[in-house]
Amino acid sequence: MNQLTPEQRMEITKRGFSRRSFGRFAALATAGATLPFYNEAALAQLSMVANMPADAVKINANENPLGPCPEAAEAIYGVIKKGGRYMYEETFSFAKTLADQEGVKPNYVQPWAGSSAPLHQAVMAFTSKDRPFVIADPGYEAGERAAKFIGAGVVRVPLMKDTCAHDVKAMVAAHPTPGLIYVCNPNNPTGSMTSRADIEWLVKNKPAGSVLLLDEAYIHLSSAQPGTDFVAADKDVIVLRTFSKLYGMAGLRAGAAIARPDLLAKIQPYTAGALPLTGMVGANASLKVKNLVAERRKIIGDVRSDTLEFLSKKGYKFAPTESNKFMLDVRMPGNQFAAKMRDEKIYIGRVWQAWPNHVRVSIGTAEEMAKFKAAFTKIMG
Amino acid sequence: MNQLTPEQRMEITKRGFSRRSFGRFAALATAGATLPFYNEAALAQLSMVANMPADAVKINANENPLGPCPEAAEAIYGVIKKGGRYMYEETFSFAKTLADQEGVKPNYVQPWAGSSAPLHQAVMAFTSKDRPFVIADPGYEAGERAAKFIGAGVVRVPLMKDTCAHDVKAMVAAHPTPGLIYVCNPNNPTGSMTSRADIEWLVKNKPAGSVLLLDEAYIHLSSAQPGTDFVAADKDVIVLRTFSKLYGMAGLRAGAAIARPDLLAKIQPYTAGALPLTGMVGANASLKVKNLVAERRKIIGDVRSDTLEFLSKKGYKFAPTESNKFMLDVRMPGNQFAAKMRDEKIYIGRVWQAWPNHVRVSIGTAEEMAKFKAAFTKIMG
Repeated sequence: MNQLTPEQRMEITKRGFSRRSFGRFAALATAGATLPFYNEAALAQLSMVANMPADAVKINANENPLGPCPEAAEAIYGVIKKGGRYMYEETFSFAKTLADQEGVKPNYVQPWAGSSAPLHQAVMAFTSKDRPFVIADPGYEAGERAAKFIGAGVVRVPLMKDTCAHDVKAMVAAHPTPGLIYVCNPNNPTGSMTSRADIEWLVKNKPAGSVLLLDEAYIHLSSAQPGTDFVAADKDVIVLRTFSKLYGMAGLRAGAAIARPDLLAKIQPYTAGALPLTGMVGANASLKVKNLVAERRKIIGDVRSDTLEFLSKKGYKFAPTESNKFMLDVRMPGNQFAAKMRDEKIYIGRVWQAWPNHVRVSIGTAEEMAKFKAAFTKIMG
Repeated sequence: MNQLTPEQRMEITKRGFSRRSFGRFAALATAGATLPFYNEAALAQLSMVANMPADAVKINANENPLGPCPEAAEAIYGVIKKGGRYMYEETFSFAKTLADQEGVKPNYVQPWAGSSAPLHQAVMAFTSKDRPFVIADPGYEAGERAAKFIGAGVVRVPLMKDTCAHDVKAMVAAHPTPGLIYVCNPNNPTGSMTSRADIEWLVKNKPAGSVLLLDEAYIHLSSAQPGTDFVAADKDVIVLRTFSKLYGMAGLRAGAAIARPDLLAKIQPYTAGALPLTGMVGANASLKVKNLVAERRKIIGDVRSDTLEFLSKKGYKFAPTESNKFMLDVRMPGNQFAAKMRDEKIYIGRVWQAWPNHVRVSIGTAEEMAKFKAAFTKIMG
């Protein structure tokens, strides 16, 4: 069991909210500047092109074209007419199911409408100017933007060279007093994996007072072992889950933060509002479908293997991936390649500054990826 | 006119942020205790009683038993299977419809999943220790809790005596540099109205640098004129709307903040995440139904009139209301009355400290209110 050290207790007290940190907060807000703020909608708008044709192939947002499973859809149909009521009980029921499956107590699960909000709010709650947000590069940008909004520091640590795993030793060495260390496993945008041994090492060796934010948005698509056992063991770990990826509920909104109640309590007050009933019952129903994860992992994995085999045969390289997306080296500025693909009505994902000649490509249906391959051949020969 | 007493002013000062209060917060968090934090879910949990019977009358949360209109339900049925995608375009489409109906530009409308989150985030963005949150008492508590969380000051100004309108002159006089002045019209919990003339006066006379947060969650249930024309005229006014009340979509989640883009930009970065597709298409469809507002206003208004007539005949008093709830003087501690009603399987709303002998009662269906009346007669004679 994890006992708090006197230093940790003092840290918590200090963290409680210094006047100074709120001064900064207030100054930012008062300045009235439009913040260069990345949330999902902003990211989507960036990648959205006016007049996207109806027959466009949309493999730009790591969406799941399978949509919700039939059981989830049925559950949602069944509650719509009851939607005049908040029905918090459905939220509690979803939390209970997830807690049981993950082997944690129900109050260790905090349901959310996806995982973007708890990622964002965790950054607000645990990082500051002196306690930075330590992330991998390339990595998912949303949390970094939240850190910048509150004036917190951000430390980017490059992914390991060949495996594209998080460089956990470099992340721990990156700053003496990080607020949050963020590991997305498998990673976004690469889909690359960080080993269980490395995550265990990180939990054991991260600086005192820091929290590991383990984003498992894509875990169901991979062979990775979940990190909820760290939570069950009361470690300073927050696990994020979403139903937007394997479960095909991106637009329906469901997710959860899984952590010790004291950690969850720090995240929650940054926002308010009931959660969408539709997302809650859909998520709960999805969890109860046996083999759904295995079946969908295979469907998406098979399409991914086929696509990557095609690209390998053409002699192109990509980061290792166990996810519904991959980072492809297109040997030209990524945005240039993306524009050429757009001319073929294929909409692929963003380019990361750290890897300017790579593009992120999401895994669509077999039909969609056939169109991707045809367009790729046309452009690249 | 209601002037603040010295005691009230001292209460305001005390209520402002102190290290001590944050120390308490941190200690609570560390202890793993559930925070006394009011968001909708917390409020719901407060009023939820274990094992509420299936035949209970639930008139405790200002819900609309009518649920979503058929057109909204149809629109939602139609998108569920597409829920694997974020479909931000549905959010933008909803914003466009609302903007057109309110006579503001589309970028003056920021969709949200209800109005609790923008209320909460507006408090975070615009209030601080030196720029307090000025509210009516009794009023909706959620914003006050957000203010306390960030250590901002809170100034409570009693409602006017007979009309139970917001005392706009006292609210303006209450503090020289308020961050936000909050007017809920019609008010929650009372359902009482603040006149257009008073709101106009407030817009004109509020201290420079302050923003009026005009919560119109319940406006469709009343004869009040919307305040979106202040927004169209680029005043420092943020209007909040929700589809949780008249539109019967509390569990489906849709709402909006309507304001100048520079004001909206300050609210948005406090949270992140796509909005529920189901809520967005339901809201958009609801807006397009002609006469829906008038029809539902009449249905709910008729049940309200009948209930209030019954109570008047019994000699009981209540605050004037044009909403789906009323505040009833039960001539005994409100919680005591609520407990008696609960024994009759009638679940009514909360009690406000300022009015300890009043209870908030939501308007249910005619059948539900018949049960309320029967229980009332049994208890009160």
